Amino acid sequence: MSSSDSAVWHTMYPSELANTTSNPIRKIVDNIKMPQNPVKPIIRLSLGDPTVFGNLSCPDVLTDAIIRNVKSHNHNGYIHSAGTEAARAAIAARYGSVDAPLTKDDVIIASGGSGALDMAITGICNPGDNILIPRPAFSLYQVIADAHNIHVRYYDLLPEKNWEADLVGMASQIDSRTQAIVINNPSNPCGSVFSKEHLRGILKVAETHRVPIIADEIYGDMTYGGTTFFPIASLTTTVPVVSVSGLAKQFCIPGWRVGWIAVHDRHDILKDIRTAYFKLSTIVLGANSLVQSAIPDILTPAPGSEEEKSLAAFKTKYYSTLEANAQFTLDTLQTIPGLHVVVPQGAMYVMCGIDRTLLADIADDLDFTQKLLLEEGVFVLPGQCFNIPNFFRVVFSAPQDKLAEAYERIRVFCQRHSK
Amino acid sequence: MSSSDSAVWHTMYPSELANTTSNPIRKIVDNIKMPQNPVKPIIRLSLGDPTVFGNLSCPDVLTDAIIRNVKSHNHNGYIHSAGTEAARAAIAARYGSVDAPLTKDDVIIASGGSGALDMAITGICNPGDNILIPRPAFSLYQVIADAHNIHVRYYDLLPEKNWEADLVGMASQIDSRTQAIVINNPSNPCGSVFSKEHLRGILKVAETHRVPIIADEIYGDMTYGGTTFFPIASLTTTVPVVSVSGLAKQFCIPGWRVGWIAVHDRHDILKDIRTAYFKLSTIVLGANSLVQSAIPDILTPAPGSEEEKSLAAFKTKYYSTLEANAQFTLDTLQTIPGLHVVVPQGAMYVMCGIDRTLLADIADDLDFTQKLLLEEGVFVLPGQCFNIPNFFRVVFSAPQDKLAEAYERIRVFCQRHSK
Repeated sequence: MSSSDSAVWHTMYPSELANTTSNPIRKIVDNIKMPQNPVKPIIRLSLGDPTVFGNLSCPDVLTDAIIRNVKSHNHNGYIHSAGTEAARAAIAARYGSVDAPLTKDDVIIASGGSGALDMAITGICNPGDNILIPRPAFSLYQVIADAHNIHVRYYDLLPEKNWEADLVGMASQIDSRTQAIVINNPSNPCGSVFSKEHLRGILKVAETHRVPIIADEIYGDMTYGGTTFFPIASLTTTVPVVSVSGLAKQFCIPGWRVGWIAVHDRHDILKDIRTAYFKLSTIVLGANSLVQSAIPDILTPAPGSEEEKSLAAFKTKYYSTLEANAQFTLDTLQTIPGLHVVVPQGAMYVMCGIDRTLLADIADDLDFTQKLLLEEGVFVLPGQCFNIPNFFRVVFSAPQDKLAEAYERIRVFCQRHSK
Repeated sequence: MSSSDSAVWHTMYPSELANTTSNPIRKIVDNIKMPQNPVKPIIRLSLGDPTVFGNLSCPDVLTDAIIRNVKSHNHNGYIHSAGTEAARAAIAARYGSVDAPLTKDDVIIASGGSGALDMAITGICNPGDNILIPRPAFSLYQVIADAHNIHVRYYDLLPEKNWEADLVGMASQIDSRTQAIVINNPSNPCGSVFSKEHLRGILKVAETHRVPIIADEIYGDMTYGGTTFFPIASLTTTVPVVSVSGLAKQFCIPGWRVGWIAVHDRHDILKDIRTAYFKLSTIVLGANSLVQSAIPDILTPAPGSEEEKSLAAFKTKYYSTLEANAQFTLDTLQTIPGLHVVVPQGAMYVMCGIDRTLLADIADDLDFTQKLLLEEGVFVLPGQCFNIPNFFRVVFSAPQDKLAEAYERIRVFCQRHSK
């Protein structure tokens, strides 16, 4: 055949699945202009990745386990598609509790927290079903739902109540095709942490309407200022909870792609769902075997061992760094006229409200972040990326001198644009 | 709420996606009885994993790169969802050719070869579309298609022609909703390798009917006895080819989950498809960053470097071991009355036909493998796992003494059951 025949080859069109897969953050970020000749070096406080600046890194216990296990050549082969028994047992031991016990058969390991969320949602929703998701929220819930023609309905997180959920609004969104209430605690992008009382309020909505909860708890334990994180499954014995978490944030290795689902069933309501998750794991075959080999080392070190002490020291240093940064961020940004900072309690984020009554020439949050980037070389994400206008998100995991420099530039920017 | 309310919680039903996700191998294997009190230790020649017996392991260059990079803490963070530029560029350089050039923008890294196949198929097929797949075949093509309501149509591989495809049958299966012809070369389960002439025959079918090819080439280069592997994309300048491969088999690390799609477009026919694959990669976010960091080391070592020599030595040792095993397997099994062995040319598999005219008490291939397991403790997979009756598959990557022991037991078994 000659290549001149090619005219009759038709252009191939992507599947609906691919066409409907679209990340709203990408659409917004790809249209943001980068400074052509920046006067100041660009400081990126945009990506939720604690490893970017090199000031935070994973625990030595993890590095040592990987080196030992890669040398052994014993962790290179195929493993169970839902993860090794040892890794699943360690996750069950570490994340189960008295009121919310877990066994290895409740845990399905996936390719990252995102792979786990994809399974968690698509395992229980058909096209036309709906899930409730928070607004503002991490965009992946919407991306997954859109790709599978699952409808999303929003419940608002209220900045004036430290981003607690509007429970009345949440309840009003539920109908017969609502398959789950998705919560994210601690929250990306808000940096908020739900109190025990508020979580009980959410559980009451779920109980009243008989809707299970998918809890994205990937930032679990990353809390500051005396705030405590409660896994929502630990606060109920009656509401079924599918908890999603992973190693990414708590161990500073987001690129390693190890997440999981933990199914907290109640009265066998999720029996078939648990099986469904195991079945779904047979397509993409879960996460890297080498990283899984280190999961028992980092989640269940022997009590009193050097490894346990080393991990505790890692955690203290990591979380105290983030806590100090959270406090510094609050202390600094809340003194800038034109901004309203909601107190960060967890994760590595703070949301800043933009008071346009005090700022001139700022049309909206996208305009604010675009001009801040062009004029001052500071890159933060506009609230639109998370489905909320008039806010921007700051990632505060950078070293404090970088944060200080960035926040000073934000101050100068707001001064220049003040009415 | 008291837990006595739980009666009114309805049992949750899994999604259609989960319900239709089902691996035929699992269904068969899960029903195979293991010996209760085995007289002889069980020898498993069932799993296509070269690392199982410890006689084959990944190259030192790879181990060294992982250790170096995990120590650096520079490869722990988020990377591009379709893979790092360095890894994609190395794959493009290693697997592109003059007639089938690749750039990093043609390569999408995924969570293993299975993740890559999932994207390759679901990116171009809607529910109700169809793909052509070989019979016998690796079961994942069917699993992926079934999960997404994509129809599969079979073309036969002919044992009497060393598992060449029935091209007339292939052509007859194509209709207006055929989105791709899936080929697997070298073949799992057949251990066969298509000749250049046969690949040109397949390309002619594709060209005539204007159907692109998805080529699963995960066993590329693993050939024996003077057989040469030709990437099908290198033999055409007009037929669009989506090639799927990965590190799993060629570098002895199937558990590490790094595969990829390489899009060989012709005349911009796959332009939107390439974009679709990049979009699909944003959901599950590709493969482990640490392993990706080592891809340039193992795929594109500096010419003349120690690393290049070490990798060449690894490859020589690995492939010559498999080649010797292939020859030993052929020499041994073909002398057993009741079996018909198709000469293995590649991968790590051989298919043995069962001649029931010579064997008593053997109902079919499942019965053969079940009885062989119970009586002799040798575990091989029945042809039914691959959609072909009257054959069984042997994985010949075990050490030769293990193979010798297993084959001797197969001989004894066939003698005992001879008519």
